[in-house]
Amino acid sequence: MIPGKQNARFVEIAESLKPQLKTRVEHALRVVKVERDENSLMGWKAVDAGRVEDVGSLNGGDQVIYDFGGHRAGTFEFDIESVLVGVEPADAPCRLKLVFGEVLNDVAESFDDYKAWVSKSWLPDEIINVDYLPEHVHMPRRHAFRYVKIEVISTSPRYGVKISNPIANAVTSAPWEDPAILSFASKGKEMSEEEKDGLRKIDEVALRTLRNCMHTVYEDGPRRDMRLWIGDLRLQALCSYATFKDYDLAKRCLYLFAGMPFNDEGLLCACVYEKPKPYFGGNCIADYAMLFAVTLLDYVKASGDKQTGKDLFEIAAKQFTFFAPNYSEDLRYNVPPAGDASESSSSWHFVDWEPKLEKECAEHAIMIYCLKAIAELASLLQVGEEPSYVLGTGSESQPISTLVPKLIEAHNKHYYDHELGVYVSGPEKQISWGSNAWAVIAGVPESKDIAQRALKAAYTRPESVQGLTPYLHHYLCDAFIVAGLEDLALKHIKEYWGSMVQAGGETFFEAWMPKEPRASPYGDLHSNSFCHAWSCTPALLLRQMGFE
Amino acid sequence: MIPGKQNARFVEIAESLKPQLKTRVEHALRVVKVERDENSLMGWKAVDAGRVEDVGSLNGGDQVIYDFGGHRAGTFEFDIESVLVGVEPADAPCRLKLVFGEVLNDVAESFDDYKAWVSKSWLPDEIINVDYLPEHVHMPRRHAFRYVKIEVISTSPRYGVKISNPIANAVTSAPWEDPAILSFASKGKEMSEEEKDGLRKIDEVALRTLRNCMHTVYEDGPRRDMRLWIGDLRLQALCSYATFKDYDLAKRCLYLFAGMPFNDEGLLCACVYEKPKPYFGGNCIADYAMLFAVTLLDYVKASGDKQTGKDLFEIAAKQFTFFAPNYSEDLRYNVPPAGDASESSSSWHFVDWEPKLEKECAEHAIMIYCLKAIAELASLLQVGEEPSYVLGTGSESQPISTLVPKLIEAHNKHYYDHELGVYVSGPEKQISWGSNAWAVIAGVPESKDIAQRALKAAYTRPESVQGLTPYLHHYLCDAFIVAGLEDLALKHIKEYWGSMVQAGGETFFEAWMPKEPRASPYGDLHSNSFCHAWSCTPALLLRQMGFE
Repeated sequence: MIPGKQNARFVEIAESLKPQLKTRVEHALRVVKVERDENSLMGWKAVDAGRVEDVGSLNGGDQVIYDFGGHRAGTFEFDIESVLVGVEPADAPCRLKLVFGEVLNDVAESFDDYKAWVSKSWLPDEIINVDYLPEHVHMPRRHAFRYVKIEVISTSPRYGVKISNPIANAVTSAPWEDPAILSFASKGKEMSEEEKDGLRKIDEVALRTLRNCMHTVYEDGPRRDMRLWIGDLRLQALCSYATFKDYDLAKRCLYLFAGMPFNDEGLLCACVYEKPKPYFGGNCIADYAMLFAVTLLDYVKASGDKQTGKDLFEIAAKQFTFFAPNYSEDLRYNVPPAGDASESSSSWHFVDWEPKLEKECAEHAIMIYCLKAIAELASLLQVGEEPSYVLGTGSESQPISTLVPKLIEAHNKHYYDHELGVYVSGPEKQISWGSNAWAVIAGVPESKDIAQRALKAAYTRPESVQGLTPYLHHYLCDAFIVAGLEDLALKHIKEYWGSMVQAGGETFFEAWMPKEPRASPYGDLHSNSFCHAWSCTPALLLRQMGFE
Repeated sequence: MIPGKQNARFVEIAESLKPQLKTRVEHALRVVKVERDENSLMGWKAVDAGRVEDVGSLNGGDQVIYDFGGHRAGTFEFDIESVLVGVEPADAPCRLKLVFGEVLNDVAESFDDYKAWVSKSWLPDEIINVDYLPEHVHMPRRHAFRYVKIEVISTSPRYGVKISNPIANAVTSAPWEDPAILSFASKGKEMSEEEKDGLRKIDEVALRTLRNCMHTVYEDGPRRDMRLWIGDLRLQALCSYATFKDYDLAKRCLYLFAGMPFNDEGLLCACVYEKPKPYFGGNCIADYAMLFAVTLLDYVKASGDKQTGKDLFEIAAKQFTFFAPNYSEDLRYNVPPAGDASESSSSWHFVDWEPKLEKECAEHAIMIYCLKAIAELASLLQVGEEPSYVLGTGSESQPISTLVPKLIEAHNKHYYDHELGVYVSGPEKQISWGSNAWAVIAGVPESKDIAQRALKAAYTRPESVQGLTPYLHHYLCDAFIVAGLEDLALKHIKEYWGSMVQAGGETFFEAWMPKEPRASPYGDLHSNSFCHAWSCTPALLLRQMGFE
């Protein structure tokens, strides 16, 4: 298999929209020590250890942890000089290990027994040698951090080192200023001040998460991957339309996907690379490819830019041709066995990283939801005939207006459990957030009551499979709002995203289960991103519900 | 204690003589594997592992060892690209560990249990991260190496790396061309071709050692310290006068020492620093300070530059005032107990790193040798009155022409063992190379027969304390030549320096005892330099004996 043929015009448009990055110098606020804390969700607490300028001479084995507050993506620099024991000057290089911490766990725990299946090279540590002192050290690689730990591996018996002026050069393509803080003037007046402050903090953390993922593309996270994925893009862009009002970065990202398909037929990649030069991502995810239509519709509606909509309509519409064949004769959506993404063009179906999740019901609903979007887009853009597709191994191409009711009927037939009043998936009739959230978002339930009952059942039943990532938690909340269950959406935002704040998050995490705070899709907490695009959505959801 | 006052004029002259460095691009010759070899002195052998351009894709845990042949000080660069497993591009940074090997032990053995008292920061390994592939990587720090090992710490499951074009940018201030190889036309005609080739190889390795220590100062070694020491300077400069014919670098180094004394009285430092800016070394060694006079005399005689001799005469002559007080009333030289060099200005007496060595006899001889040199310099430069000094706690200042015979008499009285026919030192009457070599060099023995007998006894008696470093081995050979024992000098060069060649040395080592190949003055083999200034002298000794 080889990369799909690039569309040079699309890539050129994308490149012409590459934003200028903004930088801001930020100073370390204080020095901290990290101590075990059984009361903390993540197991650690930071204890104030004095002022940055009071850090004295460090010798081999010593360390210092700077707390910059908040979180940023950026480079790090500092001054280092020798503190002599006697009259001999520094007579050997100084070797330092730097660890960049998004959360305390990064600077409190050793990476030595790292066991994730994603590359160890993503670990946020570096070893450097400073040959001559004094020196100004600028670390050229961008890191994502609130904390910087500097461990002195060795100086010499003749000298220690004094480190001063630790500086972060924060970088983003988003504005530095947040939108106005939530006043609750038009909605939520009745809330207690404590409740309002809690939501304001969640909103602040969400906006910081979004900002720190906005660079020359919408990155999934500035710590690991640093890459553009359709699923993340959709939520980031929506959130940005509601807050930072950025449209060009979304446009650039849409063109990057369209310009670098997975194959010559135009199947979209799940992710694309922009460095060292734009390159296709080499894998695809069924739900992400179909959600491209939704992402394009969101963009056109938010920006009013119909030209881009028309330019990219064909490739968005094309995606369904790759997944419609997954339907059986009786219109069950067959999720193919997960294979090697490099061999099978459509085997990866995501929904969430939760390994227990049965995905058939959710994927069927995502198909419906996305078909509706491409139909709406066709109508909005007046691009001519309604798109039509062949389902399964059939030979009849049917327009969306015919297909959707059939698929909804089939969905209700196959996945709705009348007895339990909930959508189920797979041979074991698994109840899950994923199945029910997407069913509701897709408009499958025959009434609001059914939708509410299904969501409530999925939300409360103990056997229900929940979500490992904020990506699915977002769609759960979205579904609550769609079903008129705003109180549950608000409750869930407070509890779920609020628990990340309680855990010390100044940005929201890639994966999070409050009861299993060390859970990771990759097998090791230290491979998780703690500032991740798809978790920024409280800033969107709150505004969607009318909080301003 | 604070640094001695700088002599700005001296430092300025030194800086005006800073040489332009020459660089040369050198290519790796082959790839090797390292295997255990019980027959090898250092325990390892290199096995050919193919051509540089044939190295395939490397994954996490893989390694490659490039053999550049010979040895150089320089930087290293290479190209690195990804080798994809499927269609996904390199989806994570690549983390590499590079180890620069002067000898096979550097690339064959782990540094993990390093236990030397000199800084771990000197270890020749670095860890780097390459974020985007392909990349041209230039390692900016200068290393000393024949071998470069690249260990791939991690790539990702998606890709391996192909490394190509490994290049060394060798650097020196010496000429790239060696002097004409030894023809043995005027002396040594009778030698077998094998013997001649053996000496030619030793000469070649000696010249490479000298070249790779010549930068903007005469460094003691390009791997560790990288610093200017008087003891090394004297031998390097002598060797260079006889081969590369460089005088300006020696002049620069003499001015650096004179410009940055240890104290305001003008006591010289044992070493000085030139980076990041010229700075005093913070310690002093009695024998080194006194040998400055010899080094200056050597320079004036070799270069004919009497102006520099006159300019620096006073500070050279001054040194004896700091050590003459070490004499007891009956003219025994008392070596003060070794203290902290930063507290005591004259406590460090070196002679050699051999810890068992009793130094009194040797230091007394060095005093005589250096007094003779300053007297010769005074006469050569016609600087007026003969210098005079007060010995011990006496009050009488005596000119050198009076002092030297008295000191020689005292030396023979205190240290010559008539019965054994050898010079001895300390309460245990220790026999050593150090005592006897320096006694002979200083011209203490009353006859050539006594000198020869003493040297032969010291050289052959089993209880005799030998030398850990080539520095003392040099003076042993020098003494053999002075005493008319050229055959022994030649034998020793072949055996001692030849054994370093046998051990795989393409440069000569800082410390070497063929029977204890892992001996180190610092407690760990990996802290030794394997290209060290003071071991370059076979190139001098052979020419001194008339081999050309």
